Amino acid sequence: MQKDHSGQIISCKAAVAWEFDKPLVIEEVEVAPPQEKEVRIKIVATGVCQSDLYFLLKCMNKALFPSVFGHEAAGIVESIGPGVTEFQPGDKVIPLFMPQCRECHLCKSPKTNLCVNGSAGHFDGKNFESSRITCKGKKLLQFLGVSSFSEYTVVKELALAKIDPAAPLDKVCVIGCAICTGYGAAVNSAKVEPGSTCAVFGLGAVGLAAVMGCRAAGAKRIIAIDINPEKFEKAKIFGATDVVNPNDHSKPIHQVMVEMTNGGVDYSIECIGNVEIMRRALESCIPGWGVSVIAGWTNMQDISTQPIQLMTGRKWTGTLFGGFKGKDGVSQMVKAYLDKKVMVDELITHNMTLDQINEAITLMKHGQCIRTVLSVSTQ
Amino acid sequence: MQKDHSGQIISCKAAVAWEFDKPLVIEEVEVAPPQEKEVRIKIVATGVCQSDLYFLLKCMNKALFPSVFGHEAAGIVESIGPGVTEFQPGDKVIPLFMPQCRECHLCKSPKTNLCVNGSAGHFDGKNFESSRITCKGKKLLQFLGVSSFSEYTVVKELALAKIDPAAPLDKVCVIGCAICTGYGAAVNSAKVEPGSTCAVFGLGAVGLAAVMGCRAAGAKRIIAIDINPEKFEKAKIFGATDVVNPNDHSKPIHQVMVEMTNGGVDYSIECIGNVEIMRRALESCIPGWGVSVIAGWTNMQDISTQPIQLMTGRKWTGTLFGGFKGKDGVSQMVKAYLDKKVMVDELITHNMTLDQINEAITLMKHGQCIRTVLSVSTQ
Repeated sequence: MQKDHSGQIISCKAAVAWEFDKPLVIEEVEVAPPQEKEVRIKIVATGVCQSDLYFLLKCMNKALFPSVFGHEAAGIVESIGPGVTEFQPGDKVIPLFMPQCRECHLCKSPKTNLCVNGSAGHFDGKNFESSRITCKGKKLLQFLGVSSFSEYTVVKELALAKIDPAAPLDKVCVIGCAICTGYGAAVNSAKVEPGSTCAVFGLGAVGLAAVMGCRAAGAKRIIAIDINPEKFEKAKIFGATDVVNPNDHSKPIHQVMVEMTNGGVDYSIECIGNVEIMRRALESCIPGWGVSVIAGWTNMQDISTQPIQLMTGRKWTGTLFGGFKGKDGVSQMVKAYLDKKVMVDELITHNMTLDQINEAITLMKHGQCIRTVLSVSTQ
Repeated sequence: MQKDHSGQIISCKAAVAWEFDKPLVIEEVEVAPPQEKEVRIKIVATGVCQSDLYFLLKCMNKALFPSVFGHEAAGIVESIGPGVTEFQPGDKVIPLFMPQCRECHLCKSPKTNLCVNGSAGHFDGKNFESSRITCKGKKLLQFLGVSSFSEYTVVKELALAKIDPAAPLDKVCVIGCAICTGYGAAVNSAKVEPGSTCAVFGLGAVGLAAVMGCRAAGAKRIIAIDINPEKFEKAKIFGATDVVNPNDHSKPIHQVMVEMTNGGVDYSIECIGNVEIMRRALESCIPGWGVSVIAGWTNMQDISTQPIQLMTGRKWTGTLFGGFKGKDGVSQMVKAYLDKKVMVDELITHNMTLDQINEAITLMKHGQCIRTVLSVSTQ
């Protein structure tokens, strides 16, 4: 039986990002009790995702520090604030960077997974808010409403999904970002049709989940593209029928796609976060009905293309969290994992501890892992 | 009874474009008889469209001359070539810059109005092909497979729609481009839903037809936008509920739209052919489900936006001929016009003769008309 800390400040370990483009520092932090409609959770496991690296290493916005990164995690409810009705201490949970309040007009619309009470403005320069975590007397910022690179964190009730107690937290944490983002990009955002031809650009965790989503939707041909051929075997496990390394071709990759498919693919999904590849992904699509979905995160440069690319009937769109409404999507995908309908374990190439987080970041930076899962606390 | 010229060369008048950015010249031309699966038609009336001006005055490609412009027309079949089964001399017809062969995989797909036998490559630098028209011993190029600034022209059977004999050719000619393009952009491409909010950028003939399409689709609010306030009265006749002149606002037009609609419009349609406005039209859309359709023609510059605009669920697409399959769309819209379900007459602000074509071009260049219809031949 663990000690009951409810209502008290918890002292614990967290990886603190003090400065842009500097190693994270494992520090002793204080996590305040949850306030009205907030939940304090013990993080058991967290993935390290490219979006963490984007803000830590690329985005160059000093206003985002000091902060605690991490947004793809699983844990256990430690205590609940006043007014919380959906959770009890001990519940297994996945925190949501795409909250779902279930009450706003967006939550009530079947057309979107945005939520007025969480994500309006989210990703729009407002990814960092005040957290309940302090270190050396300084308030740390909370990343995407989660901050999972900490043994404990406080999240809003609407930004938390309860999951099946049978779910292994060191696996299903990846459902909190990569799995839903990629799988949903295919199934919800592209709405891949049976018998279609798809191209997935970038075979990290999101890309492999997108390949899996294309297969689940019944695609006949799934072309998996990466400049790192070491990813191809895994892509085939997730459902790729063809693998292409752009470096093996003298032509631009969109021309390679058009020639391979006699006119272009029905669906393309960009899973890198590179505006040039976003353009190539669009231009790989067949005129008339090709749909290209942006699932990789970047917002430093504009995307562009020729108007004729769209006027001939291609559609260009994008996705956050694969179009899944946060609470619903996580429950559904955890169930699908437990029912062996989606693969998660195969994405996890490395297991480390929170202390090793800078090693995990280095692996990801150099494309040497698919997903590293960090063990944060014992259950 | 007119003289039967079938099988013979016809000498007649045409407005010839000898050079880029020079006035057209009314010349005596020779129109050869139709070949296999071709139809020679007498052009009775033709509209003058911005796309004519685009290639004549803006595109700066000397390889497009000498040529005969004009692609929005109505006429009467004069004679048919071998193998033509769908037409007889005397049929009232509208030529199609978006052909419909009814046999290719694109024609058989409900998802597109492209046609392998006509428009594959069409608009992609291949808008000008050899025509059956010569002048002073020189073969003239045919614009978009039509060339209606001529008393006679020869078109492919698959690029011609038979219309109701009751249709007044000096009106329904506008169905051959502007009406279908704008109306279809709303109804087919944006798929405007009842009760929705729409914004139409640019109130030329295509824009007004788009307003009419939004109304037909049941939009609750239709915001018509133009920097020329003289167009607002007409926009209201076609269904606009609000009119906005960007010059009346200090904020960028997309911000004006977002504020007017508490978050953005459900659908926006760009009917100008300006890449900056295409971006503003997209960014006027509501996150989550906003759809922006490009209906105005340009291909000299790229369009661009921030990735987040699409990642938050907006969809960016475009249309040629409003997504209508050529033959089907023209028949349907001529019938709708005769049934008084769509307005056409109200778009036509000026009537002139082919001899006055340079005046008509000047009017359009300076935004002083909605549509000028030229009388080309007597019926």
